[in-house]
Amino acid sequence: MSVHPFDTAIRLVADGDDAFVGATSPAYANMIGPYGGVIAATLLNAAWLHRARSGEPLALTVNFAGPLADGPFRIVARPARINRSTQHWYLELAQGEGVAATATAVFGARRETWSSTERAFPAVPRAEEVKLRARTPGAGVPAFIGRFEFREIHGGFPDFSAPVAAPDSETCLWTRDDPPRPIDYLSLASVSDIFYPRIFRRRGRWTPASTVTLTTYFHADDAALARQGDRHVLGVARASRFGGGYGDQSAEIWADDGTLLATSFQIVYFKE
Amino acid sequence: MSVHPFDTAIRLVADGDDAFVGATSPAYANMIGPYGGVIAATLLNAAWLHRARSGEPLALTVNFAGPLADGPFRIVARPARINRSTQHWYLELAQGEGVAATATAVFGARRETWSSTERAFPAVPRAEEVKLRARTPGAGVPAFIGRFEFREIHGGFPDFSAPVAAPDSETCLWTRDDPPRPIDYLSLASVSDIFYPRIFRRRGRWTPASTVTLTTYFHADDAALARQGDRHVLGVARASRFGGGYGDQSAEIWADDGTLLATSFQIVYFKE
Repeated sequence: MSVHPFDTAIRLVADGDDAFVGATSPAYANMIGPYGGVIAATLLNAAWLHRARSGEPLALTVNFAGPLADGPFRIVARPARINRSTQHWYLELAQGEGVAATATAVFGARRETWSSTERAFPAVPRAEEVKLRARTPGAGVPAFIGRFEFREIHGGFPDFSAPVAAPDSETCLWTRDDPPRPIDYLSLASVSDIFYPRIFRRRGRWTPASTVTLTTYFHADDAALARQGDRHVLGVARASRFGGGYGDQSAEIWADDGTLLATSFQIVYFKE
Repeated sequence: MSVHPFDTAIRLVADGDDAFVGATSPAYANMIGPYGGVIAATLLNAAWLHRARSGEPLALTVNFAGPLADGPFRIVARPARINRSTQHWYLELAQGEGVAATATAVFGARRETWSSTERAFPAVPRAEEVKLRARTPGAGVPAFIGRFEFREIHGGFPDFSAPVAAPDSETCLWTRDDPPRPIDYLSLASVSDIFYPRIFRRRGRWTPASTVTLTTYFHADDAALARQGDRHVLGVARASRFGGGYGDQSAEIWADDGTLLATSFQIVYFKE
């Protein structure tokens, strides 16, 4: 059985008690450095693999501090506090002395309680009814794009050859790993970053843009992930505000049975 | 001129190159430990006061790791990476060996760029037209409540003596420091946590609940804060999902001229 490219990309090997080493993967290359979602998933993986870890991820904040070059890196994963039912992790990803990302992760034990999903699942066609968008990695299309299937319902990737400024920045799409892979907390962390920069849509044109900080809240439990398997998840993203060189993004990732799997937030640098 | 109780509560004194000491303030006591918003503001203040700090806050994530007892505490504020236009901070608040909170903060230099507020300012009456809710600290009402003025437009604090479960968890209110204090990044970090737990509203009854992790994005710049002064800000909060002992909250803080000052997100533990 071959290893899925995602599992290759997030692979870590213990290097002492509170550290791991890994390496960037060409399969998930973005324009500069790796796709941010895979950096987030790799940081989460360091807490996940730590011998002191218990429970499931509740929240992950990743701060993209500096460029990550192709090649090996090291992650320090330190439990700042271990409680009976929650764990607080600090994570730092570095190449040599240069810190490329910092992160905090909260793990917790879920219990049976009252539950309710207040946010409404959008009215959308089923994934199979939405056209598959072919975006082959190559000139101007980074490799990681080939590692996801995109079925865009609205707010699809703009056509920069025919610029159109949009009145809102919302994107709604079905997506999954390509090749398909059963979803877990790590790939959920990855797919939370799947949306192109909202500024591209509002302005209808390309500008240098990159995520500065990304927070993902995990609403899914093991059962929800097991139910979802390797089918498409629904992603919805929008912005609240752009200005001063930064914009934000709020996103939801839904299972195809209407279970809210994750909500995710980011601040994005843009040039102009 | 007397010092505002907020400035007393967040006061820090340098204790070595990368650390500060402070103390909890009775004026901002919550049921157990200090009001979370003041803990968040105090952590941000440690980065703010650091000699290596430049630029304005873009994002702050605070993880409430353990209880904070009345008395002194120490904050380590370490610049994980300093770039030309962004700074990445790791912050840790401890009493003795016990870590009570971890945080990351991103600071950045804002530049003149294209700007747009995509999220709509809600249609609400002016602050002066909304009834002031008197909630005097005392039996069951923690001290910090007295440090804010609450003018609730909808989704006000539930009357637990006449329980009513609400179909949604939205709260909309005007608030400001009491006594009034010109808003800055630190008090903006504080007020981002002003909303009572969303679970109280959905279930119409009290349950033990506490914030586990809080992320605030600062959309305001110096000019927006100066324009706002000490007038009321509009706060809006709602939840997406409750279950497994945890719920979330998304919130916005608006200036009264319609400028989006901050968006804020949290995961909240609840007992049942």
